[in-house]
Amino acid sequence: MNQNDTTSRIAHVFRGTFVHSTPRVALEILGDCILGVDDEGKIAFIEKDEKDVVSLSKTWGFETSDIKQLGQYEFLMPGMVDTHIHASQYSYTGTALDLPLLEWLNTYTFPVEAKYKDLDFANDVYTKVVKRTLKNGTTTACYFATIHTDASLLLGELADKFGQRALVGKVCMDCNSAVPQYKESPSECKEETDRFIKELLKKEYPNIKPVVTPRFAPSCSSSLLSELGEIANNNKLHIQSHISENKEEVELVKTLFPGCKSYTDVYLKHNLLTDRTVMAHGCHLTDEELEIFRDTGSAISHCPNSNISICSGMLNVRNVLNHKVKLGLGTDAIRRTLDTSKALTIQDPQHETLTFEEVFRLATLGGSEALSLDDQIGNFVVGKDFDALRVNVCIPDGPIDLFPGEGPKVILEKFLNLGDDRNITEVYVAGRQVVPIPDT
Amino acid sequence: MNQNDTTSRIAHVFRGTFVHSTPRVALEILGDCILGVDDEGKIAFIEKDEKDVVSLSKTWGFETSDIKQLGQYEFLMPGMVDTHIHASQYSYTGTALDLPLLEWLNTYTFPVEAKYKDLDFANDVYTKVVKRTLKNGTTTACYFATIHTDASLLLGELADKFGQRALVGKVCMDCNSAVPQYKESPSECKEETDRFIKELLKKEYPNIKPVVTPRFAPSCSSSLLSELGEIANNNKLHIQSHISENKEEVELVKTLFPGCKSYTDVYLKHNLLTDRTVMAHGCHLTDEELEIFRDTGSAISHCPNSNISICSGMLNVRNVLNHKVKLGLGTDAIRRTLDTSKALTIQDPQHETLTFEEVFRLATLGGSEALSLDDQIGNFVVGKDFDALRVNVCIPDGPIDLFPGEGPKVILEKFLNLGDDRNITEVYVAGRQVVPIPDT
Ligand SMILES: [Zn+2]
Ligand SMILES: [Zn+2]
Repeated sequence: MNQNDTTSRIAHVFRGTFVHSTPRVALEILGDCILGVDDEGKIAFIEKDEKDVVSLSKTWGFETSDIKQLGQYEFLMPGMVDTHIHASQYSYTGTALDLPLLEWLNTYTFPVEAKYKDLDFANDVYTKVVKRTLKNGTTTACYFATIHTDASLLLGELADKFGQRALVGKVCMDCNSAVPQYKESPSECKEETDRFIKELLKKEYPNIKPVVTPRFAPSCSSSLLSELGEIANNNKLHIQSHISENKEEVELVKTLFPGCKSYTDVYLKHNLLTDRTVMAHGCHLTDEELEIFRDTGSAISHCPNSNISICSGMLNVRNVLNHKVKLGLGTDAIRRTLDTSKALTIQDPQHETLTFEEVFRLATLGGSEALSLDDQIGNFVVGKDFDALRVNVCIPDGPIDLFPGEGPKVILEKFLNLGDDRNITEVYVAGRQVVPIPDT
Repeated sequence: MNQNDTTSRIAHVFRGTFVHSTPRVALEILGDCILGVDDEGKIAFIEKDEKDVVSLSKTWGFETSDIKQLGQYEFLMPGMVDTHIHASQYSYTGTALDLPLLEWLNTYTFPVEAKYKDLDFANDVYTKVVKRTLKNGTTTACYFATIHTDASLLLGELADKFGQRALVGKVCMDCNSAVPQYKESPSECKEETDRFIKELLKKEYPNIKPVVTPRFAPSCSSSLLSELGEIANNNKLHIQSHISENKEEVELVKTLFPGCKSYTDVYLKHNLLTDRTVMAHGCHLTDEELEIFRDTGSAISHCPNSNISICSGMLNVRNVLNHKVKLGLGTDAIRRTLDTSKALTIQDPQHETLTFEEVFRLATLGGSEALSLDDQIGNFVVGKDFDALRVNVCIPDGPIDLFPGEGPKVILEKFLNLGDDRNITEVYVAGRQVVPIPDT
């Protein structure tokens, strides 16, 4: 693409160090480069700086005085893609971590999710979760909301308002809730899912998509699963759910679906495994099940933070990657992904530990692949949307101390291991600056 | 103690919620209390607020207008005790995590530690590590420096200057360094240790103590270990070292000390296990070795952050506690201690997972016990030094979102899981306010 192919104008030009991943290279450091974003939010050019900046500015029609020069301790990186986050569980983040999955759902999760019938409550939590994740660099989030259609639509509205790219799912569940007021009838599930999809699409938010969301097999009747598979396939929609999070759940699914060969087979039989499917956890999937994931193009969202917190299990990411299954990360998972991989190495010294560069890729490009959005986001490629973080590891009162001689790779590693939202000074989604968040 | 027993005046009075641990209760929440600190930095009184504040102010001679009232989202907690931190490794914190222990030492650690011969370098790093740990709530740190006496003395000087309570160790090692310039002769070790102790004690810093510091058995000859044991016992000094961090190291110690029954036996035979000893790691200690720790009153410093990062192993803290061995935490370890305990539960569902309340105790009172300082610090008891953090979970632009109905226990849990230095608005050591750090 160049200025002759398009009438787009250049909206931003950055110059400095950019870091990102490609399918071949987990970490590519582009030093001293110049990157332009057009007014449709797409990356218009990336050039090595030795090219004449003046001629570049003439070609693309920008003023050299408009170039944003990154400092020595700054870099741009692709926005992080969170492939699994329960917006509705944000209010108790960091607490209620003392029960295993099935008890945890009935004790903490369902009673809280029932409260999202109240749109004021939903508005408070969903506003906070969108702002918080944006501040922390999540430019794309794949959200579970609750069973409530209106609150789920509100989540889409808020993500759009604050400028986050999002997949939003109204949760469907017609079985096995111990909380009587938190369950739907099969017909409600179907009708409300239809209404949710129709109304969300009608808004024409540029970066918000609905995602068909059966909670997980134990919460859904077979007929509900079939209907949801049909809705998703008829409308070419994304699908999200959970699979093989803990062992007790895997056993339960065997009992509930005796006609299926495995947990994966349950979703396969109900046409829920497509190349737009992302399933959370997968800690206890067998190699045979991983092959089904690979063959259907379905992805796994690795959520080590949750898995460790409620003792669900430790996913062997290396094995998933070796099976050529697409994999992204769940909420705030870079450090825990490394921890989990290292815990597996402690158990088995033959385990090939993930590197921080690989985990960086999973958090960005890997996530875009898992959500089948890698034609649009995930790294810095001309024609993709500009979803990016401007990172400064050297801010006043920041969390990182620097020492002489640290290059971009060490600086990135320090940011990933020690940094926080203070280091993320600007966030862009589709070219729009969304952090700092304007006062409202 | 009351006003008749002492001529001390009251320097600070706080009113609000205080949380701390006792030997019997992992988490005690003292709601609506009032606490006074005398001008020697000791806790003079703690009373339930229903007592008449006016009469308390008369008894202790303070003005009610001088009371610092904590807000709804604030609490006081004991300062955190870091029982094992390498000040000299701070420059590469968050990086260089891709090699197992013995290679890691020779590749990353020894070459960096050799640079502390340069006092300017030492001054830069040690200033940053003291300020950083204080900002993060470490009121007491048990430091490894390097083999360099003058730089180690400088670390003591800086801890004193910024007001941190510290044990400071000049490292001793006369064997097995692959870095030729980073090793001492046996006579240097002994002479420089003597000089270090004498010079540090001569400064009469009120809260800084020297600690005898053989690096670990593989770095020390038997005669060096004996001499260090003698120095420590003759002068009633603290001792710190490492033990059973990874399996390769345990095997190496067997080869190096064929006359000893176990790694623990090496230290025992050299009179290095006393009730003032703290040994880092201990991942692979046997139950028999733990019994020796218990019988000698020696403590373990649990460093899960390091253990996971370089795949050393996972210490079963529950087993250590069941053996009645004193245990404190190493650097920044609250979250990783919970993670490690949960990873052990994932491996063995019978494992009794640590609770966050227990880990809170380990980080405060447990650390004071491990360093044999529990008569002086660790919780809020009249007569102990006031080492405390003022925490506010509701600060502008802070890392925590709050929701209606959250009580002190949830607020503490959110702080431990989600909070950071922004939430620690004031830090006190022996009654002196040391954070915010004054501009210098
Ligand atoms: Zn989930
Ligand atoms: Zn150490």
